Amino acid sequence: MQSQQKHVAMVLAQNFEDVEATDPKEYLERQGAKVTVIGIERGEIQGKKGATLTADATFEDVSPDDFDMLVIPGGGAPENLRIHDPAVEFTRQFVSSGRPVAAICHGPQLLISAKVLDGRRLTAVNKIRDDIVNAGGNYVDEPLVEDGNLITSRVPADLPVFDEALGRALGAVAV
Amino acid sequence: MQSQQKHVAMVLAQNFEDVEATDPKEYLERQGAKVTVIGIERGEIQGKKGATLTADATFEDVSPDDFDMLVIPGGGAPENLRIHDPAVEFTRQFVSSGRPVAAICHGPQLLISAKVLDGRRLTAVNKIRDDIVNAGGNYVDEPLVEDGNLITSRVPADLPVFDEALGRALGAVAV
Repeated sequence: MQSQQKHVAMVLAQNFEDVEATDPKEYLERQGAKVTVIGIERGEIQGKKGATLTADATFEDVSPDDFDMLVIPGGGAPENLRIHDPAVEFTRQFVSSGRPVAAICHGPQLLISAKVLDGRRLTAVNKIRDDIVNAGGNYVDEPLVEDGNLITSRVPADLPVFDEALGRALGAVAV
Repeated sequence: MQSQQKHVAMVLAQNFEDVEATDPKEYLERQGAKVTVIGIERGEIQGKKGATLTADATFEDVSPDDFDMLVIPGGGAPENLRIHDPAVEFTRQFVSSGRPVAAICHGPQLLISAKVLDGRRLTAVNKIRDDIVNAGGNYVDEPLVEDGNLITSRVPADLPVFDEALGRALGAVAV
């Protein structure tokens, strides 16, 4: 029996919080997953602290159905993605699909703009907690929150439990 | 007859958008106003691009009644101020006082947390437009928006009209 490789979409834009992208990416790749970075345009994307990742696809190139999980790192990337309509629509459809969607730090800003937080329980960096509440979300201050297909964490220090939750969720996805 | 000097409160925190603080401060000082930088703690505050301003007072040291106008620069400062309760309360009381409150770029994040935007017309950097709408604000994409005592602009390129509006508003305040 041939094992099927899981495929993860990581959405990124300029000024991402370096380790919130590189750490989950490396973790998932060590688990055998393929991680595709999706950007507003193809090519190099700079992190806040000097990391570089390459967008291999744009939102026009892909469909949510191509992936088993969506990961939304934080920093300044989510506020750049949330004003790019194809990124917002991709995110909205992914959450609706029921497959796992993971966001850390400022990542839920993209979920706010996708209008998918009403009645959902989640965490994020506390600097955007009021925006989450105004979007109808139930904000809690915990290292890891799982509510249905939403997986959220607050800050880089939460990455160990965040990564583990991504691994569990990906293992649970039927392919 | 002795002229009375107008007194402006500028609220700042780490990672402010340099020119959105330094430019209005210099403009207002050239008009003869005194500008006091208020911070979470006293001392040096770093801008995103290397500028330094000094907080001469904390929110515990001052009252909104000490000032004729409030200015909220953007960048990363507002998201640091909006999780500091004394800053949020100072802002809420200032808006309620009816005296001019000016915010640019990410500045309205502090107004969202102060819960003063319901039914108000304003602008901001487009990256937070959805948060303004969810807070009950009427977001418009214009270089300068004046609604009652609220004065708002979007980005550093709007500073010339923003500065002029601050000058006009300050001239109109009875002391």
